[in-house]
Amino acid sequence: MALEQVSANKCFGGTQFVYRHDSHETGTSMRFGAYLPPQAQAGKVPVLYWLSGLTCTEENFIVKAGAQRVAAELGVAIIAPDTSPRGLGYPGEDDSYDFGTGAGFYLDATEAPWSGGYRMYSYVAEELPALVADELPVDPARCGILGHSMGGHGALTIALKNPQRFRSVSAFSPIVAPMHVPWGQKALGGYLGPDRESWKAYDTTELVRSRGWKGPPLLVEQGDADQFLADGLRPELLEQACRDAGVPLTLNMREGYDHSYFFIATFIADHLRYHAAHLQTAG
Amino acid sequence: MALEQVSANKCFGGTQFVYRHDSHETGTSMRFGAYLPPQAQAGKVPVLYWLSGLTCTEENFIVKAGAQRVAAELGVAIIAPDTSPRGLGYPGEDDSYDFGTGAGFYLDATEAPWSGGYRMYSYVAEELPALVADELPVDPARCGILGHSMGGHGALTIALKNPQRFRSVSAFSPIVAPMHVPWGQKALGGYLGPDRESWKAYDTTELVRSRGWKGPPLLVEQGDADQFLADGLRPELLEQACRDAGVPLTLNMREGYDHSYFFIATFIADHLRYHAAHLQTAG
Repeated sequence: MALEQVSANKCFGGTQFVYRHDSHETGTSMRFGAYLPPQAQAGKVPVLYWLSGLTCTEENFIVKAGAQRVAAELGVAIIAPDTSPRGLGYPGEDDSYDFGTGAGFYLDATEAPWSGGYRMYSYVAEELPALVADELPVDPARCGILGHSMGGHGALTIALKNPQRFRSVSAFSPIVAPMHVPWGQKALGGYLGPDRESWKAYDTTELVRSRGWKGPPLLVEQGDADQFLADGLRPELLEQACRDAGVPLTLNMREGYDHSYFFIATFIADHLRYHAAHLQTAG
Repeated sequence: MALEQVSANKCFGGTQFVYRHDSHETGTSMRFGAYLPPQAQAGKVPVLYWLSGLTCTEENFIVKAGAQRVAAELGVAIIAPDTSPRGLGYPGEDDSYDFGTGAGFYLDATEAPWSGGYRMYSYVAEELPALVADELPVDPARCGILGHSMGGHGALTIALKNPQRFRSVSAFSPIVAPMHVPWGQKALGGYLGPDRESWKAYDTTELVRSRGWKGPPLLVEQGDADQFLADGLRPELLEQACRDAGVPLTLNMREGYDHSYFFIATFIADHLRYHAAHLQTAG
């Protein structure tokens, strides 16, 4: 088995695993969480990929979101990868919270030295699903993706570019227009270089316009008391892009909610039900 | 207001607060979590006290247990204090995970230097409920208590000694017989000195026998894969004491579950419903 079990905890009748493996995309040891619901003991179950935000590891979602309860009820697995390679030793890798370690931005870097191992796009879109399909009791034909903040950006961009693999997509407080906000400009410039044309491959608003989306409506949850709303997230740019491209979008603005896992925990059940409903018939 | 707000996050329609205050029992600054459900905006609600285990702060329960969902549904507040004073500077205070900082054991120490500020019994049984009743929209006549591991010990011992204040009590993986397990012998000896007679005031099995319990059945949840079951928890000693004393006990042994918050999250809803049902009619 290519997976080494780090931990296993029974939870809501299923098991919350953490696995470790050697990634050929990042060239590092990578960890991910894998919740297998009780139904996985009887056969392959649909699988959701959760992508976390800046500074997170594979642990945050596992311990804070309270997702296992509904995953067990619905019979879906949830895979929660880390947010970057770790320990590559590149200069500056640990200097800021929003670039380098914990901030892979779910792209394949082209600028040295980051191009060596910062390949979280290919890791999440290709390597990890193939590994999970080989090693765990999941049905890769019934696969969705969701995430938070930087991970919402990851979920949306990866789904838009891989609709054959990810049949449903949703996001909490996503960075939808990284080309137009400071977080994204720092990351895209640092990992991809100054040519802004190359940035478009990792900007949800650009991808909605260039590729469209034939799946179920994009589902986005956003707190209106989110401290990053105006400067980092800008959901109105996604609304405009979806209108322009005729892509269906459900944008739920939630009064009084912020950017935290307390917000995610409140609405995670709605998102899991959304995915499960659309993955019932897919495949 | 004697409370200083550290943080506030909207969660399931209510608000998860963290407050800070100056404690006269510990002589230190103390933090506690306070979840106020949406119903608290309209009037006073029942209140539960959650006591955490070794090494925890006020944060663990707040972010890991997933309790807010059901607290919001039931309309109960949950107060989650820290597990010890912090920063008193006593020699050895930070030397081990199971004594001193993070390990107050919910008792009033009598041995110097601990007797100066390690007064978590009086803090949880007296000072904090009085403060909360004064400052927050809760009904102190409808009050229950629960906890995990060392905090399960705290919940049971404090309820047994204060049945007029805490009308319902439950515990996850509690240390029920500290006089008879290494964790407890270290703590009771260190905080109270060598006279084992004095230890009996903080041993659930002793208190069940000496004081009885006229409230609803003690509710205890215990995983049978708990790594501390045989050496630290020994629920069979509680069963025996309850049988001897005629105290009703519901002990749920749960196959495959361990000592972690994944276990707590799985069954916390059952415990909150138990308390809410018994607090409906109390007062």
